[in-house]
Amino acid sequence: MIDTIAFDGDDTLWHNESLFSMTQERFRALLAHAAEPATIDARLLAAERRNLGVYGYGIKGFVLSMIETAIEVTDGRIAAADTQSLIDFGKAMLQHPVELLDGVSEVVEALSGRYRLMLITKGDLFDQESKIARSGLAERFAAVEIVSEKDPDTYRRVLERHGVAPERFLMVGNSVRSDILPVLALGGHAVHVPYHVIWAHEVADPPVDGYRRIESLRELVGVVEHL
Amino acid sequence: MIDTIAFDGDDTLWHNESLFSMTQERFRALLAHAAEPATIDARLLAAERRNLGVYGYGIKGFVLSMIETAIEVTDGRIAAADTQSLIDFGKAMLQHPVELLDGVSEVVEALSGRYRLMLITKGDLFDQESKIARSGLAERFAAVEIVSEKDPDTYRRVLERHGVAPERFLMVGNSVRSDILPVLALGGHAVHVPYHVIWAHEVADPPVDGYRRIESLRELVGVVEHL
Repeated sequence: MIDTIAFDGDDTLWHNESLFSMTQERFRALLAHAAEPATIDARLLAAERRNLGVYGYGIKGFVLSMIETAIEVTDGRIAAADTQSLIDFGKAMLQHPVELLDGVSEVVEALSGRYRLMLITKGDLFDQESKIARSGLAERFAAVEIVSEKDPDTYRRVLERHGVAPERFLMVGNSVRSDILPVLALGGHAVHVPYHVIWAHEVADPPVDGYRRIESLRELVGVVEHL
Repeated sequence: MIDTIAFDGDDTLWHNESLFSMTQERFRALLAHAAEPATIDARLLAAERRNLGVYGYGIKGFVLSMIETAIEVTDGRIAAADTQSLIDFGKAMLQHPVELLDGVSEVVEALSGRYRLMLITKGDLFDQESKIARSGLAERFAAVEIVSEKDPDTYRRVLERHGVAPERFLMVGNSVRSDILPVLALGGHAVHVPYHVIWAHEVADPPVDGYRRIESLRELVGVVEHL
């Protein structure tokens, strides 16, 4: 019944949130002289949320929110060298090698002969394109869509553009809010593969019925056969 | 012969570079105590070029390059309040009203009944989408493509995706390097509408033959009829 399978990128095919949480750890260390870790985390999350409507998702906006938070938390006494460190953290994130999750290459390879595969990923266009290119997986996807938000309208547009009926479409991703709920709302199928770290902003409402949850992408091939 | 006309966005349909140059003027004023305007400009351009491969195009990368340049030019003595000002300059740019260039609404309106219109714009996905939405023009375009680079490969992919033959395609834009040369290279048509400010990075080689140059978008309707 399903002929098209789309994957999310960040934290579904390759590690991403772990890079943010590693950087956030360095951020806490940098500001340890000024505030408690919990305060720093709370102020940074508040800045990220406040700025999301202006910056959108992605590393550059994250760096700008870190700088803003550092100025706040130090009462304007942050040293320029520390600001430069934050900029350098961001550059390191943007240039970090793309590390595929366990089983990704094999699963994508196994499914690519039998289904039309797509990649539907959210975030910064330039950074996402760069990661896709470096992932070594680009050739496996008949289509790549980089979107700024993953809501039902976005999925509807993407499916129409590629002539895919929702009932023959399966989305695979780590975020209930971005990859599962909007696809179910359109009448599509979804498989949830949780990642071990989740950004506080992405935590969704309690799971609803209507989709499968697997612990590793390696289970996907078996699951798809029985959908 | 032509059935599809694509417009560039920034500095073709709406003002953009003027916003950057206005901000750069405020940047020079902020650092006036530390360096000459020409030095500041040169250091900023060097930072933007150095960072282009990491950040891509767009306002957030511009802000990060401004902060980096300010740290450099002040020998690490920039005040946190000034860093915050640079962040605020960026937010003001991102939220600045979209100002259409003279004649844009009328020309787009006039052509929309007779041609398939597209928008092909380069830059930050989130910022470009926001500008398109705020421009009031979105409904006029059969397709919108936001790309990270405008080279012949990009245009080839976009034309293939929409089933447009290059010889029936006309690109209209302000940048010879991004809007004209790559389209001519594919065998397409191009009309150049210079903007009064041009980013130093965008200055292209001397113009080649094979495309029309007009002084205002208002001339486009007449030019298209004779192509």
